[in-house]
Amino acid sequence: MTKNLNASELRKLIRSGEWKTPTSGVATGYVQANLVMLPEEAAFEFLLFCVRNPKPCPILDVLEPGKVEPSIAPNADLRSDLPRYRIFRNGEMEKEVENVTDIFQDDMVSFLLGCSFSFENALLAAGVPVRNIAEGKNVSMYITARTCVPAGRFSSPLVVSMRPMTPENAVRATQVTTRFHLTHGAPVHLGSPEELGINDLADPDFGEPVEIKHGEIPVFWACGVTSTLAATSSPLPLVITHAPGHMFVSDLRDEDLTLL
Amino acid sequence: MTKNLNASELRKLIRSGEWKTPTSGVATGYVQANLVMLPEEAAFEFLLFCVRNPKPCPILDVLEPGKVEPSIAPNADLRSDLPRYRIFRNGEMEKEVENVTDIFQDDMVSFLLGCSFSFENALLAAGVPVRNIAEGKNVSMYITARTCVPAGRFSSPLVVSMRPMTPENAVRATQVTTRFHLTHGAPVHLGSPEELGINDLADPDFGEPVEIKHGEIPVFWACGVTSTLAATSSPLPLVITHAPGHMFVSDLRDEDLTLL
Repeated sequence: MTKNLNASELRKLIRSGEWKTPTSGVATGYVQANLVMLPEEAAFEFLLFCVRNPKPCPILDVLEPGKVEPSIAPNADLRSDLPRYRIFRNGEMEKEVENVTDIFQDDMVSFLLGCSFSFENALLAAGVPVRNIAEGKNVSMYITARTCVPAGRFSSPLVVSMRPMTPENAVRATQVTTRFHLTHGAPVHLGSPEELGINDLADPDFGEPVEIKHGEIPVFWACGVTSTLAATSSPLPLVITHAPGHMFVSDLRDEDLTLL
Repeated sequence: MTKNLNASELRKLIRSGEWKTPTSGVATGYVQANLVMLPEEAAFEFLLFCVRNPKPCPILDVLEPGKVEPSIAPNADLRSDLPRYRIFRNGEMEKEVENVTDIFQDDMVSFLLGCSFSFENALLAAGVPVRNIAEGKNVSMYITARTCVPAGRFSSPLVVSMRPMTPENAVRATQVTTRFHLTHGAPVHLGSPEELGINDLADPDFGEPVEIKHGEIPVFWACGVTSTLAATSSPLPLVITHAPGHMFVSDLRDEDLTLL
């Protein structure tokens, strides 16, 4: 049933407090997004970071200071319409909360960045199985030895998500995800994890490990968690992000993202 | 001979004052860019304008305040390496100059935005004739009745460039330019100019008119001139742009832009 909710209906459930769990696999076909809110004073530099690192931080929407209604979801309120948020002060995580209406400040700028849930739907539609979905787990994510291009005070290693596949499906997945440049695009790497500085695929930095079957290779995509690491790489007085897996669900349709 | 110059050689000729003419058709295969320089105080809002209007204003590079060496052309200097610039004060064009080393201020942010010269090469390579190149003219450009999404103080109508083609070539051109989302991507319109608020194709707002042959339809792409109109839509004390046709030639190769 929840699969068939539309984005607006799901946001209503979230805002009223009836929906408190991750947004993976619900409101299928609607584009979900990573959220970063930070002070206006740092907004140009953070926007620059995203522009310079479009694969991990593809920009879906940026709001003017103090605004909370995104253009990709009219009538939504970014302070209440995600199921869970993280509050960072001076670069350190303070707590998780379900609503930031009383915490958000009028000088804050909100960024919505693409998320891999969109291309996972496209992979399934193309007949490419997605292991983390099959196993009902959070995707495995790793902090790599590659560094993003810094911008002003912001820097971060590249974070990747990994999905194991047959070589044939890795080719098909590359074709499919190339069309989705606003949700991380084509893989950044496939095969040897050592090349990315990853020592043990069974021990991800975020999410959960999944089974890698005989004959499969790991396929790596740039991951939106990079944006959280970047936003908290400098000790800003206040940064608000979504909690992992608890994304903002927009009114955009996955297929809208392939329109150039 | 000039066709075979590489980007760095061409920039050297420009910097020394030996090259003062438009950059169309030279250093073939290197990505050329529109330039906008404006005060840091307005940089976030202008970057936001570009992010919200990616078809007319695709971002190739944005520099930190006071910097003049772009990442897409190491050792270049944006103050001297374009053949001609326009200086705007309080929203009004003051003059054109060949060098802005003495005018550029340390609080200015430089934006490099994609330009259609890249996809014209790709069209020719795909066997699609480009009328303005065949006639040796500047492409025809028109201010449309469509408005861009505003950001802060910046707004602009959408400016388009037009190339007449057979319907078959219009399809091929759509396929080819879709791959180049950082140089305006697929057409924004084809056929009836009235739909865009264009009354007379023979009377373009910028550039020159070209012949439209029997059986051809006009094909319209978003145009980088939009960025100049937007940057000067607010009376900023100082804005510097390239002069039309006198672009910045980067070290990026056209094909680099299709890598996602």
